[in-house]
Amino acid sequence: MNEKRKVVLVGTGFVGMSMAYSFLNTGGIDELVLIDVNEEKAIGEAMDLQHGLPYAQGKLSIKAGGYEECKDAGIVVITAGVTQTPQETRLDLTARNTKIMQSVTEQIMASGFDGIIVIASNPVDCMTYVVQKVSGLPKERVIGSGTLLDSARLRYLMGEYLNVSSNNIHAYIMGEHGDSSFVPWTNAYVGCKPLLDVLDEQGKDLSQLHDIYTQVQQAGYEIVKRKKSTYYGIGLSLNRLVQAIFNDENVILTVSAYQSGEYGQRGLYIGVPAIINRHGVREVVKLKLNEVDQAKFDHSARMLSSINHETIDPLL
Amino acid sequence: MNEKRKVVLVGTGFVGMSMAYSFLNTGGIDELVLIDVNEEKAIGEAMDLQHGLPYAQGKLSIKAGGYEECKDAGIVVITAGVTQTPQETRLDLTARNTKIMQSVTEQIMASGFDGIIVIASNPVDCMTYVVQKVSGLPKERVIGSGTLLDSARLRYLMGEYLNVSSNNIHAYIMGEHGDSSFVPWTNAYVGCKPLLDVLDEQGKDLSQLHDIYTQVQQAGYEIVKRKKSTYYGIGLSLNRLVQAIFNDENVILTVSAYQSGEYGQRGLYIGVPAIINRHGVREVVKLKLNEVDQAKFDHSARMLSSINHETIDPLL
Amino acid sequence: MNEKRKVVLVGTGFVGMSMAYSFLNTGGIDELVLIDVNEEKAIGEAMDLQHGLPYAQGKLSIKAGGYEECKDAGIVVITAGVTQTPQETRLDLTARNTKIMQSVTEQIMASGFDGIIVIASNPVDCMTYVVQKVSGLPKERVIGSGTLLDSARLRYLMGEYLNVSSNNIHAYIMGEHGDSSFVPWTNAYVGCKPLLDVLDEQGKDLSQLHDIYTQVQQAGYEIVKRKKSTYYGIGLSLNRLVQAIFNDENVILTVSAYQSGEYGQRGLYIGVPAIINRHGVREVVKLKLNEVDQAKFDHSARMLSSINHETIDPLL
Amino acid sequence: MNEKRKVVLVGTGFVGMSMAYSFLNTGGIDELVLIDVNEEKAIGEAMDLQHGLPYAQGKLSIKAGGYEECKDAGIVVITAGVTQTPQETRLDLTARNTKIMQSVTEQIMASGFDGIIVIASNPVDCMTYVVQKVSGLPKERVIGSGTLLDSARLRYLMGEYLNVSSNNIHAYIMGEHGDSSFVPWTNAYVGCKPLLDVLDEQGKDLSQLHDIYTQVQQAGYEIVKRKKSTYYGIGLSLNRLVQAIFNDENVILTVSAYQSGEYGQRGLYIGVPAIINRHGVREVVKLKLNEVDQAKFDHSARMLSSINHETIDPLL
Repeated sequence: MNEKRKVVLVGTGFVGMSMAYSFLNTGGIDELVLIDVNEEKAIGEAMDLQHGLPYAQGKLSIKAGGYEECKDAGIVVITAGVTQTPQETRLDLTARNTKIMQSVTEQIMASGFDGIIVIASNPVDCMTYVVQKVSGLPKERVIGSGTLLDSARLRYLMGEYLNVSSNNIHAYIMGEHGDSSFVPWTNAYVGCKPLLDVLDEQGKDLSQLHDIYTQVQQAGYEIVKRKKSTYYGIGLSLNRLVQAIFNDENVILTVSAYQSGEYGQRGLYIGVPAIINRHGVREVVKLKLNEVDQAKFDHSARMLSSINHETIDPLL
Repeated sequence: MNEKRKVVLVGTGFVGMSMAYSFLNTGGIDELVLIDVNEEKAIGEAMDLQHGLPYAQGKLSIKAGGYEECKDAGIVVITAGVTQTPQETRLDLTARNTKIMQSVTEQIMASGFDGIIVIASNPVDCMTYVVQKVSGLPKERVIGSGTLLDSARLRYLMGEYLNVSSNNIHAYIMGEHGDSSFVPWTNAYVGCKPLLDVLDEQGKDLSQLHDIYTQVQQAGYEIVKRKKSTYYGIGLSLNRLVQAIFNDENVILTVSAYQSGEYGQRGLYIGVPAIINRHGVREVVKLKLNEVDQAKFDHSARMLSSINHETIDPLL
Repeated sequence: MNEKRKVVLVGTGFVGMSMAYSFLNTGGIDELVLIDVNEEKAIGEAMDLQHGLPYAQGKLSIKAGGYEECKDAGIVVITAGVTQTPQETRLDLTARNTKIMQSVTEQIMASGFDGIIVIASNPVDCMTYVVQKVSGLPKERVIGSGTLLDSARLRYLMGEYLNVSSNNIHAYIMGEHGDSSFVPWTNAYVGCKPLLDVLDEQGKDLSQLHDIYTQVQQAGYEIVKRKKSTYYGIGLSLNRLVQAIFNDENVILTVSAYQSGEYGQRGLYIGVPAIINRHGVREVVKLKLNEVDQAKFDHSARMLSSINHETIDPLL
Repeated sequence: MNEKRKVVLVGTGFVGMSMAYSFLNTGGIDELVLIDVNEEKAIGEAMDLQHGLPYAQGKLSIKAGGYEECKDAGIVVITAGVTQTPQETRLDLTARNTKIMQSVTEQIMASGFDGIIVIASNPVDCMTYVVQKVSGLPKERVIGSGTLLDSARLRYLMGEYLNVSSNNIHAYIMGEHGDSSFVPWTNAYVGCKPLLDVLDEQGKDLSQLHDIYTQVQQAGYEIVKRKKSTYYGIGLSLNRLVQAIFNDENVILTVSAYQSGEYGQRGLYIGVPAIINRHGVREVVKLKLNEVDQAKFDHSARMLSSINHETIDPLL
């Protein structure tokens, strides 16, 4: 793997560009290359970012480029893909983006790339499966954004609800990045205090947490309703994941990680807490889920597996 | 003036939101309130930003709100306004945005606001004139973004051309934020070395600089052609200006500042280098322009004055 | 309380100066004033810091000054005090520093100061008691550094031992900043996973944790043995605490906080997890300690109370 | 050269450790290794830094180590060396530190090191000459801190005097880091305005600048008088230089750079403005000095050359 802090972004839509602009603001990487099927758009986006450099803290080099730039990149982030049209089913969308991921991944690998791929294209758990299968990269070096943003939303909303910094909210959203995700509440903490104790002390009950989960799950829809799409939150989340990798942090983040039975399921990518370092996913963190939560996880995993095997595999 | 590092943003289009997202990434302010005529949009934008907070370095409070939030704000940034339609002339646009600025400013002032207003709405030099006139605030506490971004573009492009960090490119774009702007090249330096000496040493001549200026002037059009609008560069520039004010930096930035004869013109706002601190524009930096550049400045200033007096004044 | 991000440091020894230099590097405050009984030293230290400003990210104003500077400060940090001489007992030291704290506090309050005082002078739990009693400030606005550094050491060492980012180590050192402190291991987590589960999974037992605790407790001695005193760790810890206050973070930090029965003890300052915001200690976080840990807490608290009442109270 | 952002510090006195602590606060490097003849001291210093990591922004790995750690380092910073005793002459000191530099450099090179060496040991211009000669590294990859701190002091003091941000003070201290240094005032600027014009406008004359230069030159003595030694300013300056190299910034800094006739002198290291990037000193910036300043430069260079040839060369 290359030591260089070079990131190639494939797909310059709002999600990818929000990550890119975030790097301009925070620094932490050395080079950023933008790739888009619309080459002119990638050039325009690079120009817009470059003009901020004289006022930016981040000292990075930014340009538009082609897939050959992946060769010596440490990380490629894929945000390319289409969004659902009113006429098509979710499976139609999956099929279309599968073909896009396949094409993108083949071009990345043709460069001689030997780093880590981060995928944010939807449906993210399935698209991560596609990219790993097509690339043939070690499974720990293909990572989906999974429930990274969902967990941030959860922590923000719980922090507001409990009036505590989200830094001290330790709770995960697990499962599919989608409707079958869930929060294992008995594994949630405020600082070193079990969440259930905090609620008990405040005379609150779990019903309010279900409201928070519903808010988290609906957050995407609520934002889309008001501003058509959502990208700042995921942009920062992707920046965080990329830096965790480059900094070799061994930090726990909820990402879409390959399952080898840690939670009783195998052969798919799904959102779980995982330790992230310079080599990708070092290990999946195994929580002791209660029966209800384990059942939710199994349900979510089976649903994803079925899409992988019935819709995606035949296409590859 | 209020000591609080509270910023109210009026207008949640891409320019304003790029500044807002930039604050989320860099920190440096305590509170950010988003106002938009489309209240639902402001709410959606605030949500999208909030969800990034758990992964952000900046520890700020973000929400949507109304004009009453301006009361204890240190700085209000206005990015509201319409863009030119194919059917209308530039003066039509000026007239329409004048009415918008008037309305926005009246609502800001009605809150009891007593801070600094930064304007990024176009045509920015004229809109800054409108806001000062309507608000009645001291002239140094109304600041237009002017040629702030133009100078960043110039420094970036010169840095690339000369292969020197843009931090060491000391050069300004002066005049209108628009076609009549200019670069006083004889007042430009690379580190402590006159630009003309640098070019001479490298066997280059000024014709290449005219190309750079043309690129700067065309940069906006080139980006718009490729991605419809331009916002990341100005977003970072506005972040820089706001921090310079809150940090009381006494730093020189090219902004649209009120003229009291420093360059022989009076009674208008136009892009000039100015010393910025916690009180706004402390003073306009007086360069010794050569005759050619002074003529360009006079031309640019007269053009702006004529719009102020013929198009805007009758409307207020 | 004043909104200004102005910090006055009383005592320019290595601990205080390491905090000061840390601010120069990180930014986050606006003004820093250095006070020392040796006025010339304070001036020299201010000069040494000032000369770094052109290369620093932090845009703060730094100077040496007198106690009148406390008037409009948001936070005063006290690191003044003497260290134990070979001839004197620990109670002798306590008596000497009690008189110093009294004098320093009286001069701070005489300025009209109405902010938050942070104390790092040793023995810190007792000195915090002194400063609150002499100042008459609300108890939540007098905060000792307590086990802030001890908890950082614990988290660092546990992180190294478990090969996980210290960001994901959620564990506290409680009690006196000294020999009677303890770690409530059953209240410790790695991410959302109980520490005991992590050890069990890895086939490790608690004996290794006792080694870690011993290392933490001995860390100060080990450093002092090698470099005479320890200051970088505490410097960063104090920076963190000050920023948590100014940023109004509602973040949980282990500090020396006034006890009102949260853990069954009253009327003293001792190291506990507490929620910190712009008003100081918002509340002490009540963990469910097991019997062994509660006994350790009681022992530590009784020891501190006895020093407060037998040694300190007669002196004030 | 190695792409890794690994820094090895040789010498854990206050200067080196202030740079080290600065990295802990700002981040920007990945690994820091501390080497000292007193191995126990290096271990103690590493521990003190490590304990700040849980509260630090910088995610770096810190440890004490031996010279074998230089093998894959990008940059080695040397701050080792002795200080003048009352009994010895300046030439005695030079001789003693020459032997230390020789020994240190041989051990660095024996590791297989192939990066950039930064020297801060005094007399710095001569010690840089020693390290280059002993190491045999390309001359542009051996860099002395030279007048880096002197220029920071100059910019800080001029900024205070003129009430302008030091970011806008463009002025260099050139020559020896010592008594024969000088400021080429006619090559100094405030923003894009010649300093002489600024003074003229304010009715000030150059005599006040000579006072500022004297203050800069005396700054070290003034600080030493008050706090025994000076280290925070140089610590930040070294951080800045290291980051400029790793970030490949092509930024102009005044460092002790090898002379190949740029200012008419050859074969020595002396303080000049130079463009710094990932390969070290890319080029010396050639200013047009007036006759007086050229004479000062020649005098300073001849003095250094004479020490190099008469005192140092015979020792190597």
